[in-house]
Amino acid sequence: MDQKLSFSSDYMEGAHPAILSRLLETNMEKTAGYGFDEYSESAREKIRTACCEPRADVFFLVGGTQTNATVITSMLQPWQGVIAAKTGHISTHEAGAIEAGGHKVLTLEQQNGKITAQQISEVMDAYRLDENREHTVMPGMVYISQPTEYGTLYSLEELTAISRVCRETGIALYMDGARLAYALACGTNDVSLPDIARLCDAFYIGGTKCGTLFGEAVVFPKPDTVPHFFTLIKQHGALLAKGRIAGIQFDTLFTDGLYEEIGRNAIDAADRIRRALEEKGYAQAFPSPTNQIFVILEKKKASALSGIVEMGFWENLDEDHTIMRIATSWATRPEDVDRLISLL
Amino acid sequence: MDQKLSFSSDYMEGAHPAILSRLLETNMEKTAGYGFDEYSESAREKIRTACCEPRADVFFLVGGTQTNATVITSMLQPWQGVIAAKTGHISTHEAGAIEAGGHKVLTLEQQNGKITAQQISEVMDAYRLDENREHTVMPGMVYISQPTEYGTLYSLEELTAISRVCRETGIALYMDGARLAYALACGTNDVSLPDIARLCDAFYIGGTKCGTLFGEAVVFPKPDTVPHFFTLIKQHGALLAKGRIAGIQFDTLFTDGLYEEIGRNAIDAADRIRRALEEKGYAQAFPSPTNQIFVILEKKKASALSGIVEMGFWENLDEDHTIMRIATSWATRPEDVDRLISLL
Amino acid sequence: MDQKLSFSSDYMEGAHPAILSRLLETNMEKTAGYGFDEYSESAREKIRTACCEPRADVFFLVGGTQTNATVITSMLQPWQGVIAAKTGHISTHEAGAIEAGGHKVLTLEQQNGKITAQQISEVMDAYRLDENREHTVMPGMVYISQPTEYGTLYSLEELTAISRVCRETGIALYMDGARLAYALACGTNDVSLPDIARLCDAFYIGGTKCGTLFGEAVVFPKPDTVPHFFTLIKQHGALLAKGRIAGIQFDTLFTDGLYEEIGRNAIDAADRIRRALEEKGYAQAFPSPTNQIFVILEKKKASALSGIVEMGFWENLDEDHTIMRIATSWATRPEDVDRLISLL
Amino acid sequence: MDQKLSFSSDYMEGAHPAILSRLLETNMEKTAGYGFDEYSESAREKIRTACCEPRADVFFLVGGTQTNATVITSMLQPWQGVIAAKTGHISTHEAGAIEAGGHKVLTLEQQNGKITAQQISEVMDAYRLDENREHTVMPGMVYISQPTEYGTLYSLEELTAISRVCRETGIALYMDGARLAYALACGTNDVSLPDIARLCDAFYIGGTKCGTLFGEAVVFPKPDTVPHFFTLIKQHGALLAKGRIAGIQFDTLFTDGLYEEIGRNAIDAADRIRRALEEKGYAQAFPSPTNQIFVILEKKKASALSGIVEMGFWENLDEDHTIMRIATSWATRPEDVDRLISLL
Repeated sequence: MDQKLSFSSDYMEGAHPAILSRLLETNMEKTAGYGFDEYSESAREKIRTACCEPRADVFFLVGGTQTNATVITSMLQPWQGVIAAKTGHISTHEAGAIEAGGHKVLTLEQQNGKITAQQISEVMDAYRLDENREHTVMPGMVYISQPTEYGTLYSLEELTAISRVCRETGIALYMDGARLAYALACGTNDVSLPDIARLCDAFYIGGTKCGTLFGEAVVFPKPDTVPHFFTLIKQHGALLAKGRIAGIQFDTLFTDGLYEEIGRNAIDAADRIRRALEEKGYAQAFPSPTNQIFVILEKKKASALSGIVEMGFWENLDEDHTIMRIATSWATRPEDVDRLISLL
Repeated sequence: MDQKLSFSSDYMEGAHPAILSRLLETNMEKTAGYGFDEYSESAREKIRTACCEPRADVFFLVGGTQTNATVITSMLQPWQGVIAAKTGHISTHEAGAIEAGGHKVLTLEQQNGKITAQQISEVMDAYRLDENREHTVMPGMVYISQPTEYGTLYSLEELTAISRVCRETGIALYMDGARLAYALACGTNDVSLPDIARLCDAFYIGGTKCGTLFGEAVVFPKPDTVPHFFTLIKQHGALLAKGRIAGIQFDTLFTDGLYEEIGRNAIDAADRIRRALEEKGYAQAFPSPTNQIFVILEKKKASALSGIVEMGFWENLDEDHTIMRIATSWATRPEDVDRLISLL
Repeated sequence: MDQKLSFSSDYMEGAHPAILSRLLETNMEKTAGYGFDEYSESAREKIRTACCEPRADVFFLVGGTQTNATVITSMLQPWQGVIAAKTGHISTHEAGAIEAGGHKVLTLEQQNGKITAQQISEVMDAYRLDENREHTVMPGMVYISQPTEYGTLYSLEELTAISRVCRETGIALYMDGARLAYALACGTNDVSLPDIARLCDAFYIGGTKCGTLFGEAVVFPKPDTVPHFFTLIKQHGALLAKGRIAGIQFDTLFTDGLYEEIGRNAIDAADRIRRALEEKGYAQAFPSPTNQIFVILEKKKASALSGIVEMGFWENLDEDHTIMRIATSWATRPEDVDRLISLL
Repeated sequence: MDQKLSFSSDYMEGAHPAILSRLLETNMEKTAGYGFDEYSESAREKIRTACCEPRADVFFLVGGTQTNATVITSMLQPWQGVIAAKTGHISTHEAGAIEAGGHKVLTLEQQNGKITAQQISEVMDAYRLDENREHTVMPGMVYISQPTEYGTLYSLEELTAISRVCRETGIALYMDGARLAYALACGTNDVSLPDIARLCDAFYIGGTKCGTLFGEAVVFPKPDTVPHFFTLIKQHGALLAKGRIAGIQFDTLFTDGLYEEIGRNAIDAADRIRRALEEKGYAQAFPSPTNQIFVILEKKKASALSGIVEMGFWENLDEDHTIMRIATSWATRPEDVDRLISLL
């Protein structure tokens, strides 16, 4: 099928071919359900190794909103809410799933999609000093994304500072890693998986946007962080009967460096596009170094391009300009990047 | 891999090969997310046709518990609960998902896994006549499974009677069709998909246990039964980013009679096993005509068999006997049935 | 106002005159809100003393359903449900408040309104031995009422046995004491307030049905049983701005033996009525020794009486007989008992 | 008891003496429970008359947070949230009760505690135009307070404009009237009870802060706005067994102009204090014309006053100044106002 050039998202194809092959190879084997199969166990073990956390609890869920809702509502106490950037995915695009689970999202102003240790510290101080605090929602957790909604990254220094505030004030730190492969592969990134495991109380390694058909791997570096989490996964409708389908996918991702390769392909493509944009004088709305590029286009230009290349509409900047999102992925081919650059 | 003979469940393999082929063929195509792709639309259209309901709303969710929770809590009002058999899946094995969504499961005694129009009618009368009814939970929906937890079937007469009571008393009728293919293929079944669509307000056609990797197709025969159901799917964490992965699977299931073929294979195998059991004098705990057989074994016999063939432990009947579940599926091979029969 | 003789309930009048006097006396004083006033503190202290638990946490809420929902949902973990008699108030007449709070009520068959340590033990064993237990709701608490819905009492031996099972299996024991004054005053009762405090993890001393305008005193014998319980009271809409109105009422109840006096008045009246019923050959549906009497009347007799004396309709026993509830209270006058007896 | 001069809040005393007298007079009468008594019916009828809405549904609940949570969660659909000012009571001081009920509070920037029709219109447009709106929370209701948290008032023009936007966009308008008596009595107010009933879909007339022991009267001008609202009150733990205690209080409030008198006393006192503050050159933080005055004090002055007169601490304005709240009420005596003025 001859398709239009498309950079509109990183979840438009199926799965990385290596993953699909592995599903095909193992298809007629009979295994235990619900993740008690050997593939899921192998995947868990490889993730533990990659995180340098041999005792970590690892669970496979299906999608991002589901994972955020299940983890966050399981870790919060009934009197607590979760701190997040105003632009955080849980704040805006999850249809109120956190609130449907009974908890307030306590939003902070962001800069390039990020929040700071200083802001969190101020929130915690304000709560502590508020004479009426027992009439309010106690902040019980911090939610961040790596990369953020704007494709930006927390540095190791920033993440360390946030983690320190959380631990000093006794609240949990949770990282949404829907696109984590694209953070880890980024040239300017200095935060490794073991860093994340050391600094966060929970995080997930996203599959859906990084090469699998679906699936997100939740990691609790400290075992038994949430008792009966299996039951809570079931209760949230997030438990796969054929758990191995997730297990095989993550086992493949974490074999022979596939996860890194997927990240690298997307970043190489994005870096080439970014350089071309800079050379041609296009401005970018956010300083994203990862697989998402937010380019500012004159509306005329955007309109002209729209028939030839699909990008994601982000928002209107002003009367004459619009912000469009260009996303690369494991599936982006060099020849597509060439064509895009030539069109710009 | 040389595996032990296994009849323990109907979700131990991956997907029917035809489904996996289709996923492979379409893998590198780029499509819109969230079910807005052409494969999902094609699948929806084929399901509408199979149900003789050209205007039905069809949605693809991931798993059974999730589907039950999303549909039931979306259709109930805050003051209502759902009527179900004591042995119903939502009553017992869904980790309290309905209650976590805010609603009581109003349980009825069952016979062979089924409840009757008469029982429902009595519940509705009791509510109507109760002077204190406004202090109690109003029954707002009936949940049944076809086949039931015990593999039994509602006849068309029974289903029609239940539907009539529901409509007369103004409550919804919802059918859990996790194993619906095995009901439809059954020789003694007289309830068709169009019958179900005509008699129920909502139901789902199960994929996970009938040949797909995962996925359940929710059908609301009357359009707009639940406004903004898409948002509720998202809120429940049940929305797949790569919606087409479900769409392609259901499109394949409903092409060239694959869904019927899957049902038939399981029922043929189960019928052969049932005949052999009868000939050999084994008793069955429930009169299941579908793909699940609940055989009563002496514990010694069960123990002897356990090293050679996997069955599902159901429960202990008495000191000397145990009930074991034998399940067939789309993947059951005639030679496995032969071996099982020879072992019994 | 000349009123018909009425024994239909124990919450038909306002408050015991001593309570109303105290509200009047203190009316124009200015105090801190939300229970931080001296009257509330005094009441808490007197309740601690009456329970022989000097470190107990005591909170004043408004009504019974609210108290049950707030305490139970605060003490359960998200994967847990609460065990109760099928006839328990939370199972039947609280409009699904426990489920609206996200938790299943796990019902047990009752005998005269009571459940046994044996039954609880069996439920806990069944859960522990169930291979699929992580797919089910974990029992996390036992709910009982003293007296029960049928006016019956747990003996000290029975309560001790229930408490032992709960502690051995690590689940909480909670007692609904809506009518506790009428249990404590009962001649055959051998369970004291200190016994309850020693054997339960939480309970409430009911005001509404025992002489106050409204109000229930929740006692957690062990301090900090539920962290931030104040915030949870607020979140459940159960926090009174003018907290002292509850505090003053309970302070009065627990001053100069008023609470005992209230219980005694009701029990003396009920005992006289019971003796008269026995002498006159009336049967009782349940062996209640407290302030509620469930008398079996021929329908003709019930109908004849209905114009002269109000009783509570309980249920129809058979075609010719009905069960009527006679309730006494702090407000029942000896002359009303005389009139009732003469009418029977 | 010789008490320190206190203006810290409007809920520090018990009830207006006329209300307490009425409770005393009726105390030993026996009436039906749950609001089915004649006093409650009389109160409902008087409120309907005061609102010029003869068919309105009126319900008595206990407290403000409870009322907000019960009404808002009952009127919203599961996919909807409620629009409110960032400073709205539901946004800040209700311990997350709305989110605990499953719904997001969609906050807007405020000016002097108020939001505008223009802002609401923009939110509704943004939702309508958002291509991803089905992934977000739909605004389903507007929450405002009259007076606001800052004591300010919506004019009839402002309220009419807000009502118009709500009706044009199909969302409900709900007014929190915790201190409504003090709005209605205010000289600059031009919004009457019938205006509110005409322009809002639901509102409550607050008792707790306007002279009762407790209690809030919810009014749905259009009957059956929320079906089974009685059951939802029960489910929220907001149903009083002795419903008449609320009924009698509201019946008294709406007899012989007591409600107006209560408002007038507070406003007269506040106006005198405001004039004195202006004469003495004190600045006010918000232009409140109602019973709350937010005076800016030098910290030294605040500290000096704190031993003689209680005010409510609001917040620190800067290093040298603090904002203190002075609240008057039905119980404020002219001589206390004199003393306060002389102290300033």
